[in-house]
Amino acid sequence: MTGNPAGHATLTRAPDGSYVVEADHRTRYAVTVVDGLLDRTFPPPDGGSLGDPLGRVPGGSVRRLVVVDRDVMRPYGRKIREFLDRHGIEYRLVKLPGGERSKSLKLVMRLCREFDDFGVPRRGEPVIVIGGGAILDMARMTSGIYRRGVPVIAWPVSLVGQIDAGLGVKTAIDAGGYKNRLGTYSPLERAVIDRRFLATLNDRRLSDGLAEILKVGVAVDETLFGSLRAHGRKVLHERFQGRTETGDRAASQILDAAIRGMLGELAPNLYEDDMARPVYLGHTWSPAVEMEALRRSRRWLPWERRPALLHGEAVALDMILSAGIALDRGAMDKAEYELVAETTDSLGLPLWDSLLDDADLLAAGLRDSTRHRGGRQLAPLPRGIGAVVFADDITASEVAHSVKRQRALGGRSVG
Amino acid sequence: MTGNPAGHATLTRAPDGSYVVEADHRTRYAVTVVDGLLDRTFPPPDGGSLGDPLGRVPGGSVRRLVVVDRDVMRPYGRKIREFLDRHGIEYRLVKLPGGERSKSLKLVMRLCREFDDFGVPRRGEPVIVIGGGAILDMARMTSGIYRRGVPVIAWPVSLVGQIDAGLGVKTAIDAGGYKNRLGTYSPLERAVIDRRFLATLNDRRLSDGLAEILKVGVAVDETLFGSLRAHGRKVLHERFQGRTETGDRAASQILDAAIRGMLGELAPNLYEDDMARPVYLGHTWSPAVEMEALRRSRRWLPWERRPALLHGEAVALDMILSAGIALDRGAMDKAEYELVAETTDSLGLPLWDSLLDDADLLAAGLRDSTRHRGGRQLAPLPRGIGAVVFADDITASEVAHSVKRQRALGGRSVG
Repeated sequence: MTGNPAGHATLTRAPDGSYVVEADHRTRYAVTVVDGLLDRTFPPPDGGSLGDPLGRVPGGSVRRLVVVDRDVMRPYGRKIREFLDRHGIEYRLVKLPGGERSKSLKLVMRLCREFDDFGVPRRGEPVIVIGGGAILDMARMTSGIYRRGVPVIAWPVSLVGQIDAGLGVKTAIDAGGYKNRLGTYSPLERAVIDRRFLATLNDRRLSDGLAEILKVGVAVDETLFGSLRAHGRKVLHERFQGRTETGDRAASQILDAAIRGMLGELAPNLYEDDMARPVYLGHTWSPAVEMEALRRSRRWLPWERRPALLHGEAVALDMILSAGIALDRGAMDKAEYELVAETTDSLGLPLWDSLLDDADLLAAGLRDSTRHRGGRQLAPLPRGIGAVVFADDITASEVAHSVKRQRALGGRSVG
Repeated sequence: MTGNPAGHATLTRAPDGSYVVEADHRTRYAVTVVDGLLDRTFPPPDGGSLGDPLGRVPGGSVRRLVVVDRDVMRPYGRKIREFLDRHGIEYRLVKLPGGERSKSLKLVMRLCREFDDFGVPRRGEPVIVIGGGAILDMARMTSGIYRRGVPVIAWPVSLVGQIDAGLGVKTAIDAGGYKNRLGTYSPLERAVIDRRFLATLNDRRLSDGLAEILKVGVAVDETLFGSLRAHGRKVLHERFQGRTETGDRAASQILDAAIRGMLGELAPNLYEDDMARPVYLGHTWSPAVEMEALRRSRRWLPWERRPALLHGEAVALDMILSAGIALDRGAMDKAEYELVAETTDSLGLPLWDSLLDDADLLAAGLRDSTRHRGGRQLAPLPRGIGAVVFADDITASEVAHSVKRQRALGGRSVG
């Protein structure tokens, strides 16, 4: 949902005679947390006023192209069809492979052809995207460039999607060997968050999302960090489904705090005019590390192959690396550093990966993040827990020193 | 240039509990008209305050990737290099083929690789694009998705570029057999307009641009239409270089009125929130006609091949078709219709093309424009000269009737 309802827009002339165009543009979208979206009882008796998860408006079209992660079809396919039928939608389902590999230009082009075939109009028939963070990134990028943007409603089914990829306006695919090299700012019309979808995620995918929640806690919300420390393991174990009363309360609180924290950080800076963002914590070296792990996971010779890292796993590694530099700079103390490491470990996330031994890779990662942030490192480092400082002068030897400490942490690792 | 200097941004909760993100974002860019940009005497002695055509800022980087239309290199290559050297720029020139065929995903990807190789950062080193409308569309699309948008300064060298493609925020490439199917809204940092570049255009390319100026005249500016009628032919003949005093004044006035008219229409509606746009005149059927002509120009068998249409030529054909419907509906009278046709002809533009005989093509074109305008035809039809009405109920037989009249006009044609 975007628009320019009462927007400022002027055409003036500068003292040098140049025409100056100036216009404000409004972005507006909603994030609706629901419980049991696909149940026969949805919408609940008292929930008639809930924002419509299908974006229907009185008198409007009920045609919808529905893009679904192939892996989501197995557990939820029948229920999704029933839901669409029950609500009188004329739909076509497009099933696509999920996972990080789906963030490719090839899949963008394939989806464009589906848009052409279905005849997706510029307005009035939002595309429904049901999937994890990668599919959301790719399908929203496609929608963002198709006819210069068609509306999208996201139903993120992964934890990363629910508290990160599905909430903002950023879209992305990988290209030229770089993570998220191409993308757009394309606001959603609505995101619909239902933690029931998390029931079928495996542990690793849940931990993947918990990494981004942990990042929000360490960077801006000490209370959330506290909840994760106290209940994170239990919530992970219960898959956010609330099998105990404590677990239920904690799952709902943690999810809600993560969403609120993320949106609070995003709202004043949707288009990244300010590149000093606390929520970039864990995202300074991780793009390079994640991409290199992905590359090596595709090696042809089996003995050269290694497992890929999930996005959240790379973020966790980067966060610990950042915390180590913070420790050396006196921005956090040893107890805080260890607490962060311990909590990271308790959430099933790696503390170490052999790729961190590659100093050139880390240097290249920092260099590219610096380019991405407009020429300054602007690397967020934890300041205690719940705040950050931004560093512009991190040296290779500081990185090496932090890596050395990180190696000594031991703990689980992926590669 | 974009930013959110004092922007409104809120995170609130709707009555149904949904989080609502709302934020204003400011777009700001400049269009600078200069005279003799590449001359040794630029900037002129009194022009120190002119907006910098290279986007330099005190203390900022002077690295620039410069994307140049290959056809521009022959007449201006040496001068461009001298200009960049004289101003102390550390540059790399990327030469790309121009013309409508360059608006492809393949070229976007090729340019992305050049961006990677040069290391274009997210901010502070605007990409300079020197070329016609097609290269501008494609290179700005690339810049718009690269790192979610890197700054661009455009030096449009074609007339279409100077009064249309180089002025707005819309970028585009063709895909799936459709014109401009993929694109973004990506504001320029600055456009630099120098009519000296027009000296080397051939007649057909000049007429191509005059079509878009004529469109502005017919749709919103009766005075501009009057200037075109009085001086258009002369200006065309003099290639906007002012070989006579009248011709010089007219060229400068026509160019300035076209730029002002276009920006005035764009500014309040940069992101096309309002799809009822007078400047869509000539753009209802033309995308389909232009694309079909392009397709047939690529046929393998020589006897099936036909010349492609330039964008402005297709726009002219569409404008006459629209005027015919307006005439049948009583929105313009016969004298006005003939005046528009006569002026179109005088500017070296076609009044007829055999593709207009293809009723299915026109029906498909209208259908797709309707999808593009969010489900309504919203077809601008001239209301007299200098204004439009929007039609939502154009029938196939109305189109056929207008086509029949158009065929009888005779005049030059391309295909």
